[in-house]
Amino acid sequence: MNTEQADEMTRRVMSYSKNMDFKTYSGIATFFRANLCEDLSEVDVALVGLPTDAGLTQRTGARHGPREVRSQSCNILYYNPQTKVIPFELARIADIGDVRLLNSFNLDRVIAEIHEFYVKLQEAGVVPVTVGGDHSITYPILKALGAKRPVGLVHVDSHIDATGRIADSTVHHGAPFKNAVDDGVLDPKRTVHIAIRDPAAEFETFAHETGQTVIDIDRFYELGVKGVIAETRRIVGDGPTYISFDIDGLDPAYAPGTGTPAVGGITSHEAKKLLQGLRGLDIIGGDLVEVSPPFDSAGITALAGAQLAFEILCLAAEAFAKRRAV
Amino acid sequence: MNTEQADEMTRRVMSYSKNMDFKTYSGIATFFRANLCEDLSEVDVALVGLPTDAGLTQRTGARHGPREVRSQSCNILYYNPQTKVIPFELARIADIGDVRLLNSFNLDRVIAEIHEFYVKLQEAGVVPVTVGGDHSITYPILKALGAKRPVGLVHVDSHIDATGRIADSTVHHGAPFKNAVDDGVLDPKRTVHIAIRDPAAEFETFAHETGQTVIDIDRFYELGVKGVIAETRRIVGDGPTYISFDIDGLDPAYAPGTGTPAVGGITSHEAKKLLQGLRGLDIIGGDLVEVSPPFDSAGITALAGAQLAFEILCLAAEAFAKRRAV
Amino acid sequence: MNTEQADEMTRRVMSYSKNMDFKTYSGIATFFRANLCEDLSEVDVALVGLPTDAGLTQRTGARHGPREVRSQSCNILYYNPQTKVIPFELARIADIGDVRLLNSFNLDRVIAEIHEFYVKLQEAGVVPVTVGGDHSITYPILKALGAKRPVGLVHVDSHIDATGRIADSTVHHGAPFKNAVDDGVLDPKRTVHIAIRDPAAEFETFAHETGQTVIDIDRFYELGVKGVIAETRRIVGDGPTYISFDIDGLDPAYAPGTGTPAVGGITSHEAKKLLQGLRGLDIIGGDLVEVSPPFDSAGITALAGAQLAFEILCLAAEAFAKRRAV
Amino acid sequence: MNTEQADEMTRRVMSYSKNMDFKTYSGIATFFRANLCEDLSEVDVALVGLPTDAGLTQRTGARHGPREVRSQSCNILYYNPQTKVIPFELARIADIGDVRLLNSFNLDRVIAEIHEFYVKLQEAGVVPVTVGGDHSITYPILKALGAKRPVGLVHVDSHIDATGRIADSTVHHGAPFKNAVDDGVLDPKRTVHIAIRDPAAEFETFAHETGQTVIDIDRFYELGVKGVIAETRRIVGDGPTYISFDIDGLDPAYAPGTGTPAVGGITSHEAKKLLQGLRGLDIIGGDLVEVSPPFDSAGITALAGAQLAFEILCLAAEAFAKRRAV
Amino acid sequence: MNTEQADEMTRRVMSYSKNMDFKTYSGIATFFRANLCEDLSEVDVALVGLPTDAGLTQRTGARHGPREVRSQSCNILYYNPQTKVIPFELARIADIGDVRLLNSFNLDRVIAEIHEFYVKLQEAGVVPVTVGGDHSITYPILKALGAKRPVGLVHVDSHIDATGRIADSTVHHGAPFKNAVDDGVLDPKRTVHIAIRDPAAEFETFAHETGQTVIDIDRFYELGVKGVIAETRRIVGDGPTYISFDIDGLDPAYAPGTGTPAVGGITSHEAKKLLQGLRGLDIIGGDLVEVSPPFDSAGITALAGAQLAFEILCLAAEAFAKRRAV
Amino acid sequence: MNTEQADEMTRRVMSYSKNMDFKTYSGIATFFRANLCEDLSEVDVALVGLPTDAGLTQRTGARHGPREVRSQSCNILYYNPQTKVIPFELARIADIGDVRLLNSFNLDRVIAEIHEFYVKLQEAGVVPVTVGGDHSITYPILKALGAKRPVGLVHVDSHIDATGRIADSTVHHGAPFKNAVDDGVLDPKRTVHIAIRDPAAEFETFAHETGQTVIDIDRFYELGVKGVIAETRRIVGDGPTYISFDIDGLDPAYAPGTGTPAVGGITSHEAKKLLQGLRGLDIIGGDLVEVSPPFDSAGITALAGAQLAFEILCLAAEAFAKRRAV
Repeated sequence: MNTEQADEMTRRVMSYSKNMDFKTYSGIATFFRANLCEDLSEVDVALVGLPTDAGLTQRTGARHGPREVRSQSCNILYYNPQTKVIPFELARIADIGDVRLLNSFNLDRVIAEIHEFYVKLQEAGVVPVTVGGDHSITYPILKALGAKRPVGLVHVDSHIDATGRIADSTVHHGAPFKNAVDDGVLDPKRTVHIAIRDPAAEFETFAHETGQTVIDIDRFYELGVKGVIAETRRIVGDGPTYISFDIDGLDPAYAPGTGTPAVGGITSHEAKKLLQGLRGLDIIGGDLVEVSPPFDSAGITALAGAQLAFEILCLAAEAFAKRRAV
Repeated sequence: MNTEQADEMTRRVMSYSKNMDFKTYSGIATFFRANLCEDLSEVDVALVGLPTDAGLTQRTGARHGPREVRSQSCNILYYNPQTKVIPFELARIADIGDVRLLNSFNLDRVIAEIHEFYVKLQEAGVVPVTVGGDHSITYPILKALGAKRPVGLVHVDSHIDATGRIADSTVHHGAPFKNAVDDGVLDPKRTVHIAIRDPAAEFETFAHETGQTVIDIDRFYELGVKGVIAETRRIVGDGPTYISFDIDGLDPAYAPGTGTPAVGGITSHEAKKLLQGLRGLDIIGGDLVEVSPPFDSAGITALAGAQLAFEILCLAAEAFAKRRAV
Repeated sequence: MNTEQADEMTRRVMSYSKNMDFKTYSGIATFFRANLCEDLSEVDVALVGLPTDAGLTQRTGARHGPREVRSQSCNILYYNPQTKVIPFELARIADIGDVRLLNSFNLDRVIAEIHEFYVKLQEAGVVPVTVGGDHSITYPILKALGAKRPVGLVHVDSHIDATGRIADSTVHHGAPFKNAVDDGVLDPKRTVHIAIRDPAAEFETFAHETGQTVIDIDRFYELGVKGVIAETRRIVGDGPTYISFDIDGLDPAYAPGTGTPAVGGITSHEAKKLLQGLRGLDIIGGDLVEVSPPFDSAGITALAGAQLAFEILCLAAEAFAKRRAV
Repeated sequence: MNTEQADEMTRRVMSYSKNMDFKTYSGIATFFRANLCEDLSEVDVALVGLPTDAGLTQRTGARHGPREVRSQSCNILYYNPQTKVIPFELARIADIGDVRLLNSFNLDRVIAEIHEFYVKLQEAGVVPVTVGGDHSITYPILKALGAKRPVGLVHVDSHIDATGRIADSTVHHGAPFKNAVDDGVLDPKRTVHIAIRDPAAEFETFAHETGQTVIDIDRFYELGVKGVIAETRRIVGDGPTYISFDIDGLDPAYAPGTGTPAVGGITSHEAKKLLQGLRGLDIIGGDLVEVSPPFDSAGITALAGAQLAFEILCLAAEAFAKRRAV
Repeated sequence: MNTEQADEMTRRVMSYSKNMDFKTYSGIATFFRANLCEDLSEVDVALVGLPTDAGLTQRTGARHGPREVRSQSCNILYYNPQTKVIPFELARIADIGDVRLLNSFNLDRVIAEIHEFYVKLQEAGVVPVTVGGDHSITYPILKALGAKRPVGLVHVDSHIDATGRIADSTVHHGAPFKNAVDDGVLDPKRTVHIAIRDPAAEFETFAHETGQTVIDIDRFYELGVKGVIAETRRIVGDGPTYISFDIDGLDPAYAPGTGTPAVGGITSHEAKKLLQGLRGLDIIGGDLVEVSPPFDSAGITALAGAQLAFEILCLAAEAFAKRRAV
Repeated sequence: MNTEQADEMTRRVMSYSKNMDFKTYSGIATFFRANLCEDLSEVDVALVGLPTDAGLTQRTGARHGPREVRSQSCNILYYNPQTKVIPFELARIADIGDVRLLNSFNLDRVIAEIHEFYVKLQEAGVVPVTVGGDHSITYPILKALGAKRPVGLVHVDSHIDATGRIADSTVHHGAPFKNAVDDGVLDPKRTVHIAIRDPAAEFETFAHETGQTVIDIDRFYELGVKGVIAETRRIVGDGPTYISFDIDGLDPAYAPGTGTPAVGGITSHEAKKLLQGLRGLDIIGGDLVEVSPPFDSAGITALAGAQLAFEILCLAAEAFAKRRAV
């Protein structure tokens, strides 16, 4: 690219949102400076905040995640220097604000409200990229997105999150992928869990018995990032695939601000490369969950979360453009 | 007191708990170094941790309150230098640990479990001094303590917490005193709310209509601490009285670590003097709620909470000794 | 107010902005949940963010002020429990976003851009309530607001901020009130500086020589808040008056997050009462400046700033309504 | 003062140290920008850092006090706006650096080294104003300063610090004033302890039995600051007097960064007024101790410590000038 | 493992301690939820807190280590997902509380007290896994454990800690392995120091002259974790071996909360793999030292410390079971 | 080295500065404990603090960098354990204090003042190792150092910093290497940018068009540290070379305290090895920039900055000694 081309590109991209501003601290913070928009007919890929931690079992604070990730996302803006993708060139992208939940004291009802919201997005043909919130939210999202056809899953996390009843409830932030398989909206054969190192992993017999793949942290480093990418692509194949990234997949040094930190995780560079290796998959949505600002240090967790959400946005926009082109 | 008497006193009090240690950082942290004890027959006044924030509407973290207040309470130990009260001399005091809750995703069930626990304490004749947790816990506690006879209430807070339905629920951390009056376990005529300055106060028509007294922050400073004490004593009178202290009654400078901080509150010295002015009332229990460690600075909120819980403990132990003496 | 009236009031006020939500953590953060609006013809009183610290001489970070004050202002919402004022009932209030500055490396040009922006507001008849940013911003604001007639000033601060050349510049965050008097837009006889305790105060001969009134911290406590209010009202009288509140007027315990903290200041309760005592003055605008989030603890400075900005908003809305009624 | 006089004053004072700079963040940090100087013959009043916490019993970190207080003292510079005192005009003032201690693992030897250092200062006729460090340091300082004649003491603290053996040692940070009385270097009749509220106070029979005066926190507020000043002046009288200010005399809201914080203390404004009320006493030295930066929030404790050390410096410089004038 | 087996395993392990609870924030914090137990006859492997920092030379705070590591250890619970080890299945494990030290002002006496305590553990046949505290504690522990036969050592740290006199003392946190070799309780030929990168390393001639092995950080990365494991196993061989892990062996990004952080260290994943590679060695005890909570960020250092202490616990329990089986 | 040699070495090095002290917390903090010295004729390599952030576009605070890096540098002292270099043995090294800037409100003038200062250093034959401050400072430094002959550059950063006009200014912290090439003082062919991952990189057409080399983060990991070293040495060759290290080249986990953090960077160990691989190059100066203490966590960024500045100091001292030897 020469200077003229670069300038032209900059001008064009800046025009996609009236919020674009190189001063990261200035202006109302939206995800990646996208326009705020509530009219779903004007949106292809929606950035959604889902501020709830009703499903948490340990440290709290994920309800504060969307606001801080929005703030830090202003450091990231619009361009992916490694993949050269500019998602705003590929789809109409908007921040549609936070899901406004009525309930917050009864997880079952929170889950039902979330489901209702994503059914509407699904009906409007909008691809959701969501920032949580705790991990229980992925179940109602998948329930909406996989209603017609079970989806595949790329899941990065320190925990498998396919466990059973905890605290007298089958829904919670450790259960979304059992809930989704039980409901028939997630295809366990096309499901891969990456960077796992939680004590409960061994006891998550459901995942193993239903044929889900677990790449635990030791296997991750045996395979290397490229090997993990290859294995992941093999498992999820060409079908519609959802990405769920729990920020505690990163090591606590990279993501202290989270509810159930687990020592000995991957680096943010490895996480970026992993996601960048998923280009070409049929991504139909994704989420970045479990950023807990009250436990963060200097915003680095929210910043890492924003970066990873941006990688997911790039994948979702590319996949959208590819589907549209067909 | 001369040196021999002081030494003798120290020796005797140290013997009340095997945890007593002047090194604040050393040893397993229990409330005020009290012995851990689960056998209720050996306890007159129980220190209880209630780690739940299922009833919160705003900033989270109150579930982490009991552990941090225990840790900071080691700075306070056993003696009240202003009132000269040594509660361990007046009653058998123990830390009975945390209420172990099964549920945490459904507030109604959490409330029911708490109620069940305090019914047992009530049946065992144990006076509870509780460290929360969010303010929704006071409703089930009052439901147990006021079951036979409605109790009076001294309530320090920035909010009245007698509001109605929020987020589609009638129970939550802003409603315990409406819930308790509705259930007939709290006597609104013997109820006083102190240091109130929340926007919602004006709209809390229930409190006003049922005859509860509100001493808002302006009235607090008009009356002065001594005037507030006199007014409070007049309202609650001789009957059984419960004390509920929401740490956000203090100004955020004194208590940053809380869920709904309200600018322009009282100082911790004023709070101490207020509580010390309640000696002689028939205190049948109390709580200190809404300490949220993730938002604390250098532990000052947990430390203030520990100090105020200690003042309540002193009052409860004195009242217990008085009742026993009758 | 009875329950029906309270409910009706709540419904009406909620209708003034689509952002109203009792969950403080949910939704895009605007000042006090006001609507975002860029069309000045629909606005009577504008909430403005002015994220610059180009005029700072000491600790930095004021550029991050508007975003954090917006976030904390969600805790405050719409009602003033002490004065019973609901500003949204008195005027059309909107958050018009941040002033978008082109320059940031040359203070003279920054000042010029700010001036240009407020001239537009002035021409549109919009009353500005601004959240800074460092204190240098008050000069260009006054230059716009006082262009036709010099205004009076109520200024709370630890510093007089009417000093001369620093770092080879006559404009900076310690000079706005010299700049404004020099330009003839501020009436020194109707100017009062409150809570002053800075070493430089003695040397600020300009203030004294031009007849400005200084109520330093010792005088503040001699007079008491009511006395300070009376003196302030006497000085500024009936004419158009601007309020400038530098958060470092508060003690560092109440406002650690600021650029030039000064030990021994007033409390946030005193600050609230002081502002509430100014009802009825002809307030034509105001600002809250010098919140520096990187030095804040648990957000208490931004929260105090939001509270004080809300008090100013109430005064400005009342004064607007009064002028309109004439 | 007119502008010319103010400018002349500024120029003259700036000349007293090559470190003077209005940019608080710039330059090597010395106490109040004083010159670094090791030649005692050029110094009348010495600012001394004493970085040790070998005598602490609770939270640690006081060894880091001098460096942070130096850094924050750059915000305070050279002028006292309330008393109009400019200490640099009254005496030759220098920062003589930190006492370089060889030992740090054996408190007895640390105490001996400190004593040796202050004997040298005493012999050189230098008045020491020391920033600690934990409170055990005051004993060897008094041992040097009171060697020829017992001194009087103004002591602000939450603890009396005249207790006996702890952790098998008679010297520690809770004992300096027993040690000093035992050694005959402190006159108990001319000793006053202010703002006391520690549980151990009642048990500090030594202080009472030897005739020391205790103004506890309740008495402090009964007397008011002016009453405390009067009582203090009456007790210490005209004789040589030392000032020892433990930062935990302030409330934890004002001074979170300290080793044994005690809830319900005085404000920094009250502390300033108290010290300013001691002008005219024959101050022969002073210290500010127990600032613990690892527990500080945004530097407010170190800043308050710097401010109070400056008040002590002003008193010491005035007293020095008065003695010299005789 | 199928679901029934997993459930059965969970039930059995939960029965080993009444403290087991999946809510990390609930309950009195003991190491890994183990029972508190003071009766040594009921304990095979003891978890010991040793809250002292009397031997520190730089940043303080290690005395606060045991309490915070206990709190964070509740996140780790009982199962090792990489090695599949459940230590509670292999030995009777209890938290025996903190070593109660009388002295704290004289390092020599602190060392003597610690020694006395571990002699008792040794006589009772209890294997100690200790959480410090500063590194000086390892000397008296080794003195007890190696009294009959010199032990081997696996030592991970940024410093060799076999240096000579500092601050006029031969015992301190930089000297335990010189002290232990001098006393004949540590076999220098069976001693390996891993991840070393301290400036003093070159000058630690004692380690080199006595035949100790140093794998500095460069050699660590040349060999790779597997190579380091092999080399370590070769050096320590089959004899009784102690593990001492100084948390500053990790990079400051992973362990900011420590007394002498050294840039450029290993990751927590590498540390875990290293320890997991030591299975089968005859581990007779171990420690995790130098966690300094006042300098920690969001608890990540204490969490990493808890994880590494758990790895040591697994090794110690396995070795115990193996010895018992013989 | 045997013990005698080590002791002799220690004694000799300690004599190079009167500030040398193994207690990191004690004494006035200078860079690496070097002597303070203003007489340039006594200095070969000068450690310079440059406290300005007038050129920042995003988060602020770099003006506070020099003081915190000085403080943390006391942990590092004088010896390089990997390269065995003791810079004080190779050249006369002094901390010459901070550049005292008159202006701070107008970047152009700040740049001019900086230039003037380094011209003086250049004329005195002093090699500068500078701690910033924001990255705009490198332009005037290069303008002084490259005045006679364009220099080569090793630049580690997440951004290329050779961009054009921002905020209506051609000088700012994202432009130094365009400014320097435009002025003919930097040889673009001998310029290499390492660890780049900023979105703007693609658009920095100037760098590519003028023949500068960019080793972005992906290429960095493809080449490995050794490969990057080889490539770097090839590019800069034998000519005079400057090193500029922006701390945001490190991942935010290692360096949270910086103005424009970029997720997915290198580790501090990789950074150290990279710099250590540059021995033998003709280093004529260097800088470490963009440490922003207000956003730091537990000082780890300032500590990493100090370590990397020390590596640059070692290279500069070696190169100086080599040039002198010729």
